[in-house]
Amino acid sequence: MASGGLRGAALAIHGGGPTAVLNASLAGAVLEARAHPAITGFLGARFGVHGLLKEDFIDLGSQPAALLEDLSWTPGSALGSCRRGLREEEYPLAIEILARRQVRLVFFMGGNGTMFAADRLAGAARAAGYPLRVIGVPKTIDNDLAGTDHAPGYGSAARFVACAVRDIGGDLWSLRERVTVVETMGRNTGWLVAASALARHRRDDPPHLIYLPEHPVSEERIAADVERIYARLGYCLIAVCEGQRDERGEPFGADAFAPDGFERRLSANLGHTLARMLERRLKIRARSEKPGLLGRSSPYFVSAADRDEAWQCGRAAVHAALAGVSGKMITLVRAPGPEYRCSTGLAELSCVAGRERPFPREWIAADGSDVAPAFLAWIAPLTGEVPPRPRLEGG
Amino acid sequence: MASGGLRGAALAIHGGGPTAVLNASLAGAVLEARAHPAITGFLGARFGVHGLLKEDFIDLGSQPAALLEDLSWTPGSALGSCRRGLREEEYPLAIEILARRQVRLVFFMGGNGTMFAADRLAGAARAAGYPLRVIGVPKTIDNDLAGTDHAPGYGSAARFVACAVRDIGGDLWSLRERVTVVETMGRNTGWLVAASALARHRRDDPPHLIYLPEHPVSEERIAADVERIYARLGYCLIAVCEGQRDERGEPFGADAFAPDGFERRLSANLGHTLARMLERRLKIRARSEKPGLLGRSSPYFVSAADRDEAWQCGRAAVHAALAGVSGKMITLVRAPGPEYRCSTGLAELSCVAGRERPFPREWIAADGSDVAPAFLAWIAPLTGEVPPRPRLEGG
Repeated sequence: MASGGLRGAALAIHGGGPTAVLNASLAGAVLEARAHPAITGFLGARFGVHGLLKEDFIDLGSQPAALLEDLSWTPGSALGSCRRGLREEEYPLAIEILARRQVRLVFFMGGNGTMFAADRLAGAARAAGYPLRVIGVPKTIDNDLAGTDHAPGYGSAARFVACAVRDIGGDLWSLRERVTVVETMGRNTGWLVAASALARHRRDDPPHLIYLPEHPVSEERIAADVERIYARLGYCLIAVCEGQRDERGEPFGADAFAPDGFERRLSANLGHTLARMLERRLKIRARSEKPGLLGRSSPYFVSAADRDEAWQCGRAAVHAALAGVSGKMITLVRAPGPEYRCSTGLAELSCVAGRERPFPREWIAADGSDVAPAFLAWIAPLTGEVPPRPRLEGG
Repeated sequence: MASGGLRGAALAIHGGGPTAVLNASLAGAVLEARAHPAITGFLGARFGVHGLLKEDFIDLGSQPAALLEDLSWTPGSALGSCRRGLREEEYPLAIEILARRQVRLVFFMGGNGTMFAADRLAGAARAAGYPLRVIGVPKTIDNDLAGTDHAPGYGSAARFVACAVRDIGGDLWSLRERVTVVETMGRNTGWLVAASALARHRRDDPPHLIYLPEHPVSEERIAADVERIYARLGYCLIAVCEGQRDERGEPFGADAFAPDGFERRLSANLGHTLARMLERRLKIRARSEKPGLLGRSSPYFVSAADRDEAWQCGRAAVHAALAGVSGKMITLVRAPGPEYRCSTGLAELSCVAGRERPFPREWIAADGSDVAPAFLAWIAPLTGEVPPRPRLEGG
């Protein structure tokens, strides 16, 4: 591939919380870069922009290919990441460091906050007259990135949510005694909690109710929904997102949102608060389950499709930079038609940075406590199969 | 095998919370029974003693062997279980039903509460002059059963705890920003939380602190321990059991123990309460993780050794009953020596029923915030390998 006159080193920077396949994007980029002599080295910033500003780099060029392949199936951030962006006065320093290290390609792998920093760094380089190509590589478990059909990291996290609800649901079926609130990650969007619907295989399988932040719901309504299900089945599993709001738009949970720099902080106790509310209102035992960080950190739930797409996004970022592109983010583009086919594309960083993509209204069931079948058709190829649990005949 | 003059049907009853390998004990018993013509049928009680009292049985004799094999790798209770035991006046009714169904062998699969019911049923049959053989099959994730080296269900739950702490720890390493309290199951004993030590592979790997209910600890002490680790590493992961007590013997967490019939109810919010306490005292961000029921319900963490031993306990129960034994529980007996070898034995139900086996004092580290190496040698064969996460060279 022509390198557009470029000759220099590449740098990868991770931003925000890790995903199950962030390392796959890293491995894809690093191994692709080795095929191109114009790329003279590959650095990784340790712990995100901290590493860039402190010139704390790791040599990715010399890592064994087999180790990178291994890492591509390992959740987390092998480089280390951080939640902070760059402050206004730090951009010139960053450009100075990049110039000194002869870095001409920068790959920011992260979510919408990270894409903001990527966009600003591209602008700062232009302003300084330093020839730099900055490409964003999408990453989020929440799937709240604009401009792409879906984001790498989402498919695996969604697979986890579906498996966790299936298995917690199977456990609760055995005892049929209580109401359980399963709180999922997903911040302000319902993409992850919606994936819990993949847990169902038979009539009346959990989850019995799914609430999404895009559809605020009152305590009264949740309690009435639960009471109805419980009366019929003798137990009830509710899936709810950590960012769920009530009818006034307030988050559930006593110690709710507080400003916290790079990322707003969510209620740490929403599921527990809802369980207590249900016990109080319905006089039925209720508990909460919060599988939490395991959903993005356990290797046992990685979706093969997600891992492959993450890798392809890393590769595509190298191709784009070598072709002279800068200031853009790699996207995933789904081909129309019933068969799942996905390729990569490009979006302006400025169209992605700082934006949040909500779960579509038309995929929320009319009564507000479930998802529509069209969503299940859309998500199935991203997670891979979530097989049913075997059951005794007549059981 | 001689059947000691017995000819009749067998009945399996599950009691208490499910484990990852409870169905393996069931499958082992059912498939073994098919080899013995004296056993004329095999019933399963649906939802524990509820099924017995309501004569709500499932035919286990006709289940396909391949399905039983599949189920033996599937967590949960395929029969359904319940937390209640039998009330005094229900024993005669139970005997009447068993006689009508020509049931001569009863296999109670459960923990110490279930063994109590098994022991009483054996006594009631003797008193009524009804020839019944009652065998207990051990099952608990908590490993708090007396009379056995360890209980089926523990190895898989311990494997989950170790993998969860390893993976949550890997995620937290990537961000190095906060204190995280990981709350494990385990009720009043430290067996499960202790298994988190298997997550460590390198110096300073999480968990950095492990607290056990057998060693009460004050808020002040936990805060001082965390402060020391955080100052050195920039983050800190604490593993703590849901039943942890403070120096006065009180459980942490606002909505703590309440009487609840068959099982005492634990604080549902211990990790969260500890995290809030640490934030308040140390002015450091702290969160909690509570992987919860997934630890006994996810098929991805089943220990092969645990599954095999659970199956062997089911088989051994059939053998014991056919040999004329009654009123005993199958046990796991570890052979002395460095190589792991385990066979089955028998213990009096009356010596197991209602007792709780604490984590041994000598396996708690002197400073009370870790486990001793001897424990790791003891547990390793039960969980199977908990491999390290790959890391970049120099990373």
